[in-house]
Amino acid sequence: MIQDWEGFLLPYEQAVAELKVKLRGLRPQFDQLNQQTPIEFVTGRVKPAESIKEKLIRRHVDEERIEQDLQDIAGLRIMTQFVDDIYQIVHILRQRTDMKILEERDYVTNAKPSGYRSYHIVIEYPVQLVTGEKKILAEIQVRTMAMNFWATIEHSLKYKNNDGFTDEISEHLRTLATQAYQIDEELAQIRKEIQANKEEE
Amino acid sequence: MIQDWEGFLLPYEQAVAELKVKLRGLRPQFDQLNQQTPIEFVTGRVKPAESIKEKLIRRHVDEERIEQDLQDIAGLRIMTQFVDDIYQIVHILRQRTDMKILEERDYVTNAKPSGYRSYHIVIEYPVQLVTGEKKILAEIQVRTMAMNFWATIEHSLKYKNNDGFTDEISEHLRTLATQAYQIDEELAQIRKEIQANKEEE
Amino acid sequence: MIQDWEGFLLPYEQAVAELKVKLRGLRPQFDQLNQQTPIEFVTGRVKPAESIKEKLIRRHVDEERIEQDLQDIAGLRIMTQFVDDIYQIVHILRQRTDMKILEERDYVTNAKPSGYRSYHIVIEYPVQLVTGEKKILAEIQVRTMAMNFWATIEHSLKYKNNDGFTDEISEHLRTLATQAYQIDEELAQIRKEIQANKEEE
Amino acid sequence: MIQDWEGFLLPYEQAVAELKVKLRGLRPQFDQLNQQTPIEFVTGRVKPAESIKEKLIRRHVDEERIEQDLQDIAGLRIMTQFVDDIYQIVHILRQRTDMKILEERDYVTNAKPSGYRSYHIVIEYPVQLVTGEKKILAEIQVRTMAMNFWATIEHSLKYKNNDGFTDEISEHLRTLATQAYQIDEELAQIRKEIQANKEEE
Repeated sequence: MIQDWEGFLLPYEQAVAELKVKLRGLRPQFDQLNQQTPIEFVTGRVKPAESIKEKLIRRHVDEERIEQDLQDIAGLRIMTQFVDDIYQIVHILRQRTDMKILEERDYVTNAKPSGYRSYHIVIEYPVQLVTGEKKILAEIQVRTMAMNFWATIEHSLKYKNNDGFTDEISEHLRTLATQAYQIDEELAQIRKEIQANKEEE
Repeated sequence: MIQDWEGFLLPYEQAVAELKVKLRGLRPQFDQLNQQTPIEFVTGRVKPAESIKEKLIRRHVDEERIEQDLQDIAGLRIMTQFVDDIYQIVHILRQRTDMKILEERDYVTNAKPSGYRSYHIVIEYPVQLVTGEKKILAEIQVRTMAMNFWATIEHSLKYKNNDGFTDEISEHLRTLATQAYQIDEELAQIRKEIQANKEEE
Repeated sequence: MIQDWEGFLLPYEQAVAELKVKLRGLRPQFDQLNQQTPIEFVTGRVKPAESIKEKLIRRHVDEERIEQDLQDIAGLRIMTQFVDDIYQIVHILRQRTDMKILEERDYVTNAKPSGYRSYHIVIEYPVQLVTGEKKILAEIQVRTMAMNFWATIEHSLKYKNNDGFTDEISEHLRTLATQAYQIDEELAQIRKEIQANKEEE
Repeated sequence: MIQDWEGFLLPYEQAVAELKVKLRGLRPQFDQLNQQTPIEFVTGRVKPAESIKEKLIRRHVDEERIEQDLQDIAGLRIMTQFVDDIYQIVHILRQRTDMKILEERDYVTNAKPSGYRSYHIVIEYPVQLVTGEKKILAEIQVRTMAMNFWATIEHSLKYKNNDGFTDEISEHLRTLATQAYQIDEELAQIRKEIQANKEEE
């Protein structure tokens, strides 16, 4: 049994703080290169102890396996303007030598049954502690602003509202996710048109 | 002619820094009151000198009237999950005694011709400088995440792309703005349903 | 009995966050005016619930009077290079219209028996909450880097070491405080000399 | 000739931002281990382009060799309470695998002629850019709060005051540095006494 949750979570806090600075630091580099930045904004959080405990019970995970089995204790999120930008960021993350990608899950092309879309990357990231190096698992989610908007609201509607959340409502939300994604696709199309119009001249 | 733009913008930087801390500070208060927070996130920026100069020329504003006529040199943005939340925030801002509302423009109910939606509030905000108090104009934009997503991308598509930006594309973007707003309205509807379902039990 | 300490401390957290931004914001203004800044750095903290509880017991303060009687729940600290700078800052704080000075205690001229030196200002500061305005007491300590260095180490030596802390050691620390203050005074003297040398030319 | 100083300094900005988060992150770990933290506070800065240009001229450094020859473009500073803490931090830095120590200069034991004391470490630190990894030189200075207080004021007195800065004043400042260091040594002595007194019981 983990007694000291604050102590347990400290390396995760450190990993999130470092990764936020690292990922946010990419943005001005695109400006500098005079390229349209694929990164709109970056957020990060450590899963609260209460949510971890719930998840352990829900998923029947043994506390000894918590560090290997829970991959999203440290979580980062990168928001993009366009769907294509997601894959550009994934490509950049794959080049980095300060983290090791363990797993990639493309929920952009293949949405979850709920309608949720995002690109998930699980990384192993070394944190330098006073007591030496510790390898931490972290999850980086890459998504457009439209995907993020839908996911945020769906989460907020579901949270603490299990009773009121009917199948009909799930179905309705799934439809809205599809509509949001269509807007994303049309915007990508518009970007291409503008580019083509400019080159024509 | 303003020679020292850095000096000119310093009080605006200060106003934005203070207002960001003040507006972000509202969020944990809702958590504390066990209420769903109407604030998803807050951003702020000072208009760069270059953009101010352009705007002065475009709008034929005399440099002497810059402080009265340019209301968005200091800009804050509050993002909400739901359309209703916008009006809750506007209500809270009206109660504050540390700023004075000079003007409100409701582009939520009445979208701009481009399709743009947001609630704009122009405030007068006193900054305490080493040399005494200075009253600053600032603009607070309140919008849902969906409105923000559309506005961000529309701005990014327009910016530096005037040549490629045809009437057809403007029309297409206007349609997408309407679609995004319909999603917002359906989500508001879903929230009400969930609430009703819970109360029924 | 205060049950919800987090809720109780939230307005104090807000006050400290706002005052840190406000006081730090003074520094670039001096640069801008081409004046030597009297502010080296600014720190702030909210007294932890545990320390508040201890102090209530130690001072026999009734919990109902906590907000009036404990003046340092919200604490700010401004560090200066020179002793004179302390008084310049005090002067500037007195001009501000966003806070009301309730009390000033000059432990710079009149050190505490321990040897401690600092200028203490108790202010009343209005915080705008979701539920309306709330007036908060806060303490601003202004001190030179030398005073800060001594005070930090004395506090750290005393803390949790009551047993090992003999009268002899207190006496020794008092002597070191005096020596640190002499250095402060000689540095002030050197600054004057340099100024005089420059004007002579 | 470097044309684009902003672009040149960007990787240094990134290195400083990352190292600040990394070094500050050590502090709560000591609290967690229930050990007295050797880190009081951490600061960081990138040398402004103007100061780099001056230094290149003053030291006759060719601009092509700027990245190898200027080791303090990226600068970090760790302040401790006690002299011993400096060596504890140096020991911890030597264990880290995310930076490589190129050089150590112990100006703590052997003060500079001016009286200046600090422990300097030059590191090579890899930054992950959009364009790939780039190795950056950075200088970490470790010093007590007393050393920092003296160094800050000496720098501030010297800066822009070359004319008024006589040999006599240099000599006076050197004496004050020695006095500040004696205070440091006596404080270390007091810490040992307190520890001994506690163990005796």
